[in-house]
Amino acid sequence: MVERTDEQHAQKMKKRQAAQAKIVASKTLEKGLVIVHTGTGKGKTTAALGMAIRAIGHGKKVGIVQFVKGAMATGEKAVFDRFPDLVEFLPMGDGFTWDTQDRAQDIASTRRAWDEVKRMIADPSYAMVVADELNIVLRYDYLPLSDVLEALAAKPAMTHVVITGRNAPEGLIAVADLVTEMGLVKHPFREQGVKAQAGVEF
Amino acid sequence: MVERTDEQHAQKMKKRQAAQAKIVASKTLEKGLVIVHTGTGKGKTTAALGMAIRAIGHGKKVGIVQFVKGAMATGEKAVFDRFPDLVEFLPMGDGFTWDTQDRAQDIASTRRAWDEVKRMIADPSYAMVVADELNIVLRYDYLPLSDVLEALAAKPAMTHVVITGRNAPEGLIAVADLVTEMGLVKHPFREQGVKAQAGVEF
Repeated sequence: MVERTDEQHAQKMKKRQAAQAKIVASKTLEKGLVIVHTGTGKGKTTAALGMAIRAIGHGKKVGIVQFVKGAMATGEKAVFDRFPDLVEFLPMGDGFTWDTQDRAQDIASTRRAWDEVKRMIADPSYAMVVADELNIVLRYDYLPLSDVLEALAAKPAMTHVVITGRNAPEGLIAVADLVTEMGLVKHPFREQGVKAQAGVEF
Repeated sequence: MVERTDEQHAQKMKKRQAAQAKIVASKTLEKGLVIVHTGTGKGKTTAALGMAIRAIGHGKKVGIVQFVKGAMATGEKAVFDRFPDLVEFLPMGDGFTWDTQDRAQDIASTRRAWDEVKRMIADPSYAMVVADELNIVLRYDYLPLSDVLEALAAKPAMTHVVITGRNAPEGLIAVADLVTEMGLVKHPFREQGVKAQAGVEF
Protein backbone atom coordinates (compact mmCIF):
# COMPACT_ATOMS: atom_id res chain seq x y z
CA MET A 1 0.00 0.00 0.00
CA VAL A 2 1.02 3.63 -0.55
CA GLU A 3 2.23 5.23 2.68
CA ARG A 4 0.24 8.30 3.64
CA THR A 5 0.31 10.65 6.57
CA ASP A 6 -2.76 10.77 8.79
CA GLU A 7 -3.58 14.15 7.29
CA GLN A 8 -3.36 12.78 3.72
CA HIS A 9 -5.54 9.83 4.79
CA ALA A 10 -8.18 12.19 6.18
CA GLN A 11 -8.16 14.27 2.96
CA LYS A 12 -8.50 11.21 0.77
CA MET A 13 -11.34 9.82 2.88
CA LYS A 14 -13.14 13.17 2.78
CA LYS A 15 -13.13 12.99 -1.02
CA ARG A 16 -14.21 9.38 -0.95
CA GLN A 17 -17.07 10.21 1.42
CA ALA A 18 -18.36 12.81 -1.03
CA ALA A 19 -18.14 10.32 -3.90
CA GLN A 20 -19.94 7.65 -1.85
CA ALA A 21 -22.67 10.09 -0.82
CA LYS A 22 -23.28 10.87 -4.47
CA ILE A 23 -23.58 7.16 -5.29
CA VAL A 24 -25.93 6.48 -2.37
CA ALA A 25 -28.09 9.48 -3.35
CA SER A 26 -28.44 8.03 -6.85
CA LYS A 27 -29.86 4.77 -5.47
CA THR A 28 -33.44 5.54 -4.62
CA LEU A 29 -35.41 2.59 -5.88
CA GLU A 30 -36.94 0.04 -3.53
CA LYS A 31 -38.22 -3.15 -5.09
CA GLY A 32 -38.63 -6.80 -4.41
CA LEU A 33 -35.63 -8.60 -5.86
CA VAL A 34 -35.22 -11.90 -7.61
CA ILE A 35 -32.03 -13.21 -6.01
CA VAL A 36 -30.09 -16.26 -7.23
CA HIS A 37 -27.28 -18.04 -5.36
CA THR A 38 -25.53 -20.50 -7.61
CA GLY A 39 -22.09 -22.04 -8.16
CA THR A 40 -20.32 -25.11 -6.81
CA GLY A 41 -19.04 -23.52 -3.61
CA LYS A 42 -20.62 -23.49 -0.18
CA GLY A 43 -22.82 -20.70 1.13
CA LYS A 44 -25.77 -20.74 -1.28
CA THR A 45 -28.37 -22.02 1.18
CA THR A 46 -26.56 -20.53 4.16
CA ALA A 47 -26.66 -17.00 2.71
CA ALA A 48 -30.36 -17.46 1.92
CA LEU A 49 -30.93 -18.43 5.57
CA GLY A 50 -28.99 -15.33 6.62
CA MET A 51 -31.27 -13.13 4.50
CA ALA A 52 -34.33 -14.83 5.96
CA ILE A 53 -33.00 -14.06 9.45
CA ARG A 54 -32.49 -10.40 8.53
CA ALA A 55 -36.05 -10.15 7.19
CA ILE A 56 -37.48 -11.88 10.29
CA GLY A 57 -35.48 -9.53 12.50
CA HIS A 58 -37.24 -6.62 10.79
CA GLY A 59 -40.61 -8.24 11.59
CA LYS A 60 -41.20 -9.32 7.99
CA LYS A 61 -42.85 -12.61 7.09
CA VAL A 62 -40.73 -15.21 5.30
CA GLY A 63 -41.64 -18.45 3.55
CA ILE A 64 -38.96 -21.09 2.98
CA VAL A 65 -39.47 -24.22 0.90
CA GLN A 66 -36.67 -26.75 0.59
CA PHE A 67 -36.75 -28.91 -2.55
CA VAL A 68 -34.09 -31.48 -1.66
CA LYS A 69 -33.75 -31.48 2.10
CA GLY A 70 -36.48 -33.35 3.91
CA ALA A 71 -37.50 -33.24 7.55
CA MET A 72 -34.34 -33.46 9.62
CA ALA A 73 -33.24 -31.75 12.81
CA THR A 74 -31.32 -28.84 11.31
CA GLY A 75 -30.05 -25.92 13.31
CA GLU A 76 -32.00 -23.50 11.13
CA LYS A 77 -35.27 -25.33 11.86
CA ALA A 78 -34.75 -25.02 15.61
CA VAL A 79 -34.26 -21.25 15.23
CA PHE A 80 -37.14 -20.69 12.80
CA ASP A 81 -39.44 -22.62 15.15
CA ARG A 82 -38.92 -19.79 17.64
CA PHE A 83 -40.63 -17.36 15.24
CA PRO A 84 -43.87 -19.15 14.35
CA ASP A 85 -45.69 -15.94 13.39
CA LEU A 86 -43.00 -14.85 10.95
CA VAL A 87 -41.63 -18.00 9.34
CA GLU A 88 -43.23 -20.77 7.39
CA PHE A 89 -40.46 -23.34 6.95
CA LEU A 90 -41.27 -26.33 4.75
CA PRO A 91 -38.53 -28.91 4.14
CA MET A 92 -40.39 -30.82 1.40
CA GLY A 93 -37.68 -32.83 -0.31
CA ASP A 94 -37.30 -36.59 -0.20
CA GLY A 95 -33.53 -36.42 0.02
CA PHE A 96 -31.10 -37.03 -2.78
CA THR A 97 -32.23 -38.58 -6.06
CA TRP A 98 -29.81 -41.44 -5.47
CA ASP A 99 -31.61 -42.24 -2.22
CA THR A 100 -35.17 -42.17 -3.52
CA GLN A 101 -34.21 -43.93 -6.82
CA ASP A 102 -37.72 -43.11 -7.98
CA ARG A 103 -38.13 -40.40 -10.59
CA ALA A 104 -41.93 -40.34 -10.50
CA GLN A 105 -41.84 -39.79 -6.74
CA ASP A 106 -39.20 -37.05 -7.10
CA ILE A 107 -41.31 -35.27 -9.70
CA ALA A 108 -44.43 -35.48 -7.54
CA SER A 109 -42.52 -34.11 -4.51
CA THR A 110 -41.12 -31.30 -6.64
CA ARG A 111 -44.59 -30.36 -7.81
CA ARG A 112 -45.95 -30.30 -4.25
CA ALA A 113 -43.07 -28.10 -3.11
CA TRP A 114 -43.44 -25.78 -6.10
CA ASP A 115 -47.16 -25.35 -5.40
CA GLU A 116 -46.23 -24.04 -1.94
CA VAL A 117 -43.66 -21.63 -3.40
CA LYS A 118 -46.22 -20.40 -5.93
CA ARG A 119 -48.79 -19.83 -3.19
CA MET A 120 -46.28 -17.86 -1.10
CA ILE A 121 -45.07 -15.73 -4.03
CA ALA A 122 -48.64 -14.84 -4.96
CA ASP A 123 -49.45 -13.79 -1.39
CA PRO A 124 -48.12 -10.27 -0.73
CA SER A 125 -48.07 -10.89 3.04
CA TYR A 126 -44.77 -12.74 2.47
CA ALA A 127 -41.92 -10.21 2.26
CA MET A 128 -39.45 -12.92 1.23
CA VAL A 129 -39.82 -16.38 -0.30
CA VAL A 130 -36.85 -18.77 -0.38
CA ALA A 131 -36.93 -21.66 -2.87
CA ASP A 132 -33.96 -23.67 -1.63
CA GLU A 133 -32.30 -25.94 -4.22
CA LEU A 134 -34.90 -25.06 -6.84
CA ASN A 135 -32.09 -24.94 -9.42
CA ILE A 136 -31.43 -28.64 -8.79
CA VAL A 137 -34.93 -29.76 -9.73
CA LEU A 138 -34.92 -27.42 -12.73
CA ARG A 139 -31.68 -29.03 -13.83
CA TYR A 140 -33.26 -32.49 -13.57
CA ASP A 141 -36.28 -31.26 -15.58
CA TYR A 142 -38.55 -32.15 -12.67
CA LEU A 143 -40.22 -28.77 -13.14
CA PRO A 144 -40.35 -26.65 -16.31
CA LEU A 145 -38.44 -23.37 -16.08
CA SER A 146 -41.40 -21.65 -17.74
CA ASP A 147 -43.54 -22.28 -14.63
CA VAL A 148 -40.95 -20.51 -12.50
CA LEU A 149 -40.53 -17.56 -14.87
CA GLU A 150 -44.29 -17.12 -15.02
CA ALA A 151 -44.61 -16.97 -11.22
CA LEU A 152 -41.70 -14.51 -10.96
CA ALA A 153 -43.15 -12.25 -13.67
CA ALA A 154 -46.44 -12.07 -11.74
CA LYS A 155 -44.94 -11.59 -8.26
CA PRO A 156 -45.99 -8.66 -6.05
CA ALA A 157 -43.65 -5.69 -6.57
CA MET A 158 -42.07 -5.72 -3.10
CA THR A 159 -41.60 -9.47 -2.61
CA HIS A 160 -38.02 -10.77 -2.55
CA VAL A 161 -37.62 -14.26 -4.01
CA VAL A 162 -34.39 -16.12 -3.26
CA ILE A 163 -33.53 -19.17 -5.38
CA THR A 164 -30.55 -21.38 -4.59
CA GLY A 165 -28.73 -24.33 -6.11
CA ARG A 166 -25.87 -24.99 -8.47
CA ASN A 167 -26.36 -24.79 -12.24
CA ALA A 168 -28.89 -21.95 -12.25
CA PRO A 169 -30.45 -21.95 -15.73
CA GLU A 170 -29.53 -19.07 -18.05
CA GLY A 171 -33.20 -18.12 -18.40
CA LEU A 172 -33.46 -17.59 -14.65
CA ILE A 173 -30.25 -15.56 -14.45
CA ALA A 174 -31.61 -13.36 -17.25
CA VAL A 175 -34.63 -12.27 -15.17
CA ALA A 176 -32.83 -12.09 -11.80
CA ASP A 177 -31.82 -8.80 -10.18
CA LEU A 178 -29.03 -10.11 -7.97
CA VAL A 179 -26.94 -13.14 -8.86
CA THR A 180 -24.03 -14.44 -6.82
CA GLU A 181 -21.80 -17.30 -7.88
CA MET A 182 -20.38 -19.11 -4.88
CA GLY A 183 -17.05 -20.46 -6.10
CA LEU A 184 -15.27 -23.36 -4.44
CA VAL A 185 -11.73 -22.38 -3.53
CA LYS A 186 -11.02 -24.96 -0.81
CA HIS A 187 -13.33 -27.55 0.74
CA PRO A 188 -12.35 -29.79 3.66
CA PHE A 189 -15.03 -32.36 2.85
CA ARG A 190 -13.12 -33.21 -0.30
CA GLU A 191 -9.60 -32.40 0.66
CA GLN A 192 -9.24 -33.52 4.26
CA GLY A 193 -11.89 -36.19 4.75
CA VAL A 194 -13.87 -33.94 7.09
CA LYS A 195 -17.50 -34.99 7.49
CA ALA A 196 -20.58 -32.76 7.44
CA GLN A 197 -20.80 -31.07 10.83
CA ALA A 198 -23.62 -29.54 12.90
CA GLY A 199 -23.49 -25.76 12.69
CA VAL A 200 -21.65 -25.74 9.39
CA GLU A 201 -23.52 -28.00 6.96
CA PHE A 202 -26.85 -28.32 8.79
CA MET B 1 -30.28 -34.31 -20.78
CA VAL B 2 -30.15 -37.93 -21.87
CA GLU B 3 -33.61 -39.49 -21.90
CA ARG B 4 -33.90 -42.51 -19.65
CA THR B 5 -36.72 -44.81 -18.68
CA ASP B 6 -37.79 -44.83 -15.04
CA GLU B 7 -36.15 -48.23 -14.69
CA GLN B 8 -32.84 -46.93 -16.12
CA HIS B 9 -33.09 -43.95 -13.79
CA ALA B 10 -33.54 -46.23 -10.77
CA GLN B 11 -30.54 -48.36 -11.82
CA LYS B 12 -28.33 -45.34 -12.33
CA MET B 13 -29.35 -43.86 -8.97
CA LYS B 14 -28.67 -47.18 -7.23
CA LYS B 15 -25.10 -47.09 -8.52
CA ARG B 16 -24.74 -43.47 -7.54
CA GLN B 17 -26.04 -44.21 -4.04
CA ALA B 18 -23.34 -46.83 -3.59
CA ALA B 19 -20.67 -44.40 -4.80
CA GLN B 20 -21.97 -41.68 -2.46
CA ALA B 21 -22.07 -44.08 0.49
CA LYS B 22 -18.42 -44.91 -0.13
CA ILE B 23 -17.50 -41.21 -0.20
CA VAL B 24 -19.46 -40.45 2.98
CA ALA B 25 -17.86 -43.43 4.75
CA SER B 26 -14.42 -42.07 3.89
CA LYS B 27 -15.20 -38.75 5.62
CA THR B 28 -14.81 -39.44 9.29
CA LEU B 29 -12.91 -36.49 10.65
CA GLU B 30 -14.60 -33.86 12.82
CA LYS B 31 -12.65 -30.70 13.43
CA GLY B 32 -13.08 -27.02 13.96
CA LEU B 33 -12.69 -25.30 10.61
CA VAL B 34 -11.13 -22.05 9.55
CA ILE B 35 -13.69 -20.75 7.06
CA VAL B 36 -13.14 -17.76 4.75
CA HIS B 37 -15.83 -15.97 2.70
CA THR B 38 -14.24 -13.60 0.23
CA GLY B 39 -14.86 -12.14 -3.24
CA THR B 40 -16.67 -9.06 -4.52
CA GLY B 41 -20.14 -10.61 -4.61
CA LYS B 42 -22.85 -10.53 -1.97
CA GLY B 43 -23.39 -13.25 0.61
CA LYS B 44 -20.12 -13.22 2.57
CA THR B 45 -21.54 -11.84 5.81
CA THR B 46 -24.99 -13.30 5.15
CA ALA B 47 -23.65 -16.85 4.84
CA ALA B 48 -21.66 -16.35 8.05
CA LEU B 49 -24.88 -15.28 9.78
CA GLY B 50 -26.58 -18.39 8.40
CA MET B 51 -23.86 -20.60 9.87
CA ALA B 52 -24.17 -18.81 13.21
CA ILE B 53 -27.92 -19.51 13.13
CA ARG B 54 -27.29 -23.20 12.45
CA ALA B 55 -24.84 -23.43 15.35
CA ILE B 56 -27.24 -21.61 17.69
CA GLY B 57 -30.03 -23.95 16.61
CA HIS B 58 -27.88 -26.86 17.76
CA GLY B 59 -27.47 -25.16 21.14
CA LYS B 60 -23.87 -24.15 20.48
CA LYS B 61 -22.40 -20.87 21.65
CA VAL B 62 -21.39 -18.34 19.00
CA GLY B 63 -19.37 -15.14 19.20
CA ILE B 64 -19.70 -12.55 16.43
CA VAL B 65 -17.52 -9.46 16.12
CA GLN B 66 -18.13 -6.98 13.33
CA PHE B 67 -15.12 -4.88 12.31
CA VAL B 68 -16.79 -2.34 10.03
CA LYS B 69 -20.45 -2.26 10.99
CA GLY B 70 -21.20 -0.29 14.12
CA ALA B 71 -24.29 -0.29 16.31
CA MET B 72 -27.30 -0.10 14.01
CA ALA B 73 -30.69 -1.76 14.08
CA THR B 74 -29.98 -4.72 11.83
CA GLY B 75 -32.34 -7.64 11.39
CA GLU B 76 -29.68 -10.08 12.54
CA LYS B 77 -29.22 -8.17 15.82
CA ALA B 78 -32.95 -8.40 16.59
CA VAL B 79 -32.82 -12.18 16.10
CA PHE B 80 -29.58 -12.75 18.00
CA ASP B 81 -30.98 -10.73 20.92
CA ARG B 82 -33.54 -13.51 21.35
CA PHE B 83 -30.76 -15.98 22.20
CA PRO B 84 -28.80 -14.13 24.90
CA ASP B 85 -27.33 -17.34 26.36
CA LEU B 86 -25.97 -18.52 23.04
CA VAL B 87 -24.86 -15.45 21.14
CA GLU B 88 -22.42 -12.70 21.93
CA PHE B 89 -22.90 -10.18 19.10
CA LEU B 90 -20.51 -7.23 19.07
CA PRO B 91 -20.80 -4.71 16.21
CA MET B 92 -17.57 -2.84 17.01
CA GLY B 93 -16.82 -0.91 13.85
CA ASP B 94 -17.00 2.84 13.46
CA GLY B 95 -18.49 2.61 9.99
CA PHE B 96 -16.66 3.13 6.75
CA THR B 97 -13.18 4.63 6.69
CA TRP B 98 -14.50 7.47 4.54
CA ASP B 99 -16.94 8.36 7.30
CA THR B 100 -14.51 8.31 10.23
CA GLN B 101 -11.71 9.98 8.19
CA ASP B 102 -9.45 9.20 11.11
CA ARG B 103 -6.90 6.44 10.67
CA ALA B 104 -5.70 6.44 14.29
CA GLN B 105 -9.28 5.97 15.48
CA ASP B 106 -9.88 3.18 12.92
CA ILE B 107 -6.75 1.36 14.07
CA ALA B 108 -7.72 1.69 17.73
CA SER B 109 -11.24 0.34 16.98
CA THR B 110 -9.76 -2.53 15.01
CA ARG B 111 -7.48 -3.44 17.90
CA ARG B 112 -10.38 -3.41 20.39
CA ALA B 113 -12.47 -5.62 18.10
CA TRP B 114 -9.57 -8.01 17.50
CA ASP B 115 -8.99 -8.35 21.26
CA GLU B 116 -12.59 -9.60 21.56
CA VAL B 117 -12.11 -12.08 18.71
CA LYS B 118 -8.88 -13.34 20.28
CA ARG B 119 -10.61 -13.80 23.63
CA MET B 120 -13.46 -15.75 22.02
CA ILE B 121 -11.15 -17.97 19.95
CA ALA B 122 -9.06 -18.82 23.02
CA ASP B 123 -12.19 -19.78 25.02
CA PRO B 124 -13.32 -23.31 24.08
CA SER B 125 -16.88 -22.59 25.26
CA TYR B 126 -17.42 -20.81 21.91
CA ALA B 127 -18.20 -23.39 19.21
CA MET B 128 -18.00 -20.74 16.49
CA VAL B 129 -16.39 -17.32 16.24
CA VAL B 130 -17.28 -14.98 13.35
CA ALA B 131 -14.87 -12.14 12.53
CA ASP B 132 -17.00 -10.16 10.09
CA GLU B 133 -15.08 -7.97 7.61
CA LEU B 134 -11.76 -8.88 9.21
CA ASN B 135 -10.27 -9.09 5.70
CA ILE B 136 -11.02 -5.40 5.20
CA VAL B 137 -8.96 -4.24 8.17
CA LEU B 138 -6.16 -6.65 7.20
CA ARG B 139 -6.18 -5.10 3.75
CA TYR B 140 -5.84 -1.61 5.24
CA ASP B 141 -2.97 -2.84 7.44
CA TYR B 142 -4.93 -1.86 10.54
CA LEU B 143 -3.98 -5.23 12.02
CA PRO B 144 -0.98 -7.42 11.13
CA LEU B 145 -1.89 -10.73 9.49
CA SER B 146 0.65 -12.45 11.77
CA ASP B 147 -1.56 -11.69 14.81
CA VAL B 148 -4.48 -13.46 13.11
CA LEU B 149 -2.42 -16.46 11.99
CA GLU B 150 -1.03 -16.85 15.51
CA ALA B 151 -4.51 -16.91 17.08
CA LEU B 152 -5.77 -19.40 14.48
CA ALA B 153 -2.78 -21.70 15.00
CA ALA B 154 -3.48 -21.79 18.74
CA LYS B 155 -7.28 -22.21 18.50
CA PRO B 156 -9.06 -25.07 20.31
CA ALA B 157 -9.39 -28.09 17.99
CA MET B 158 -13.19 -28.01 17.67
CA THR B 159 -13.75 -24.26 17.30
CA HIS B 160 -14.98 -23.03 13.92
CA VAL B 161 -13.67 -19.57 12.97
CA VAL B 162 -15.44 -17.73 10.14
CA ILE B 163 -13.69 -14.75 8.54
CA THR B 164 -15.38 -12.56 5.95
CA GLY B 165 -14.52 -9.70 3.66
CA ARG B 166 -13.25 -9.13 0.15
CA ASN B 167 -9.54 -9.42 -0.63
CA ALA B 168 -8.73 -12.21 1.82
CA PRO B 169 -4.92 -12.26 2.13
CA GLU B 170 -3.08 -15.20 0.56
CA GLY B 171 -1.54 -16.11 3.90
CA LEU B 172 -5.00 -16.54 5.42
CA ILE B 173 -6.30 -18.63 2.51
CA ALA B 174 -3.25 -20.87 2.90
CA VAL B 175 -4.21 -21.87 6.46
CA ALA B 176 -7.98 -21.99 5.90
CA ASP B 177 -9.92 -25.27 5.58
CA LEU B 178 -12.91 -23.97 3.64
CA VAL B 179 -12.72 -20.98 1.30
CA THR B 180 -15.59 -19.68 -0.79
CA GLU B 181 -15.28 -16.88 -3.30
CA MET B 182 -18.56 -15.02 -3.67
CA GLY B 183 -18.51 -13.75 -7.25
CA LEU B 184 -20.62 -10.84 -8.45
CA VAL B 185 -22.70 -11.86 -11.46
CA LYS B 186 -25.44 -9.23 -11.26
CA HIS B 187 -26.09 -6.57 -8.62
CA PRO B 188 -29.14 -4.28 -8.63
CA PHE B 189 -27.42 -1.70 -6.44
CA ARG B 190 -25.05 -0.94 -9.31
CA GLU B 191 -27.17 -1.78 -12.28
CA GLN B 192 -30.65 -0.59 -11.45
CA GLY B 193 -30.17 2.14 -8.84
CA VAL B 194 -31.76 -0.02 -6.15
CA LYS B 195 -30.91 1.08 -2.63
CA ALA B 196 -29.86 -1.09 0.32
CA GLN B 197 -33.02 -2.71 1.70
CA ALA B 198 -34.02 -4.13 5.08
CA GLY B 199 -33.96 -7.91 4.99
CA VAL B 200 -31.47 -8.04 2.15
CA GLU B 201 -28.53 -5.83 3.04
CA PHE B 202 -29.12 -5.42 6.79
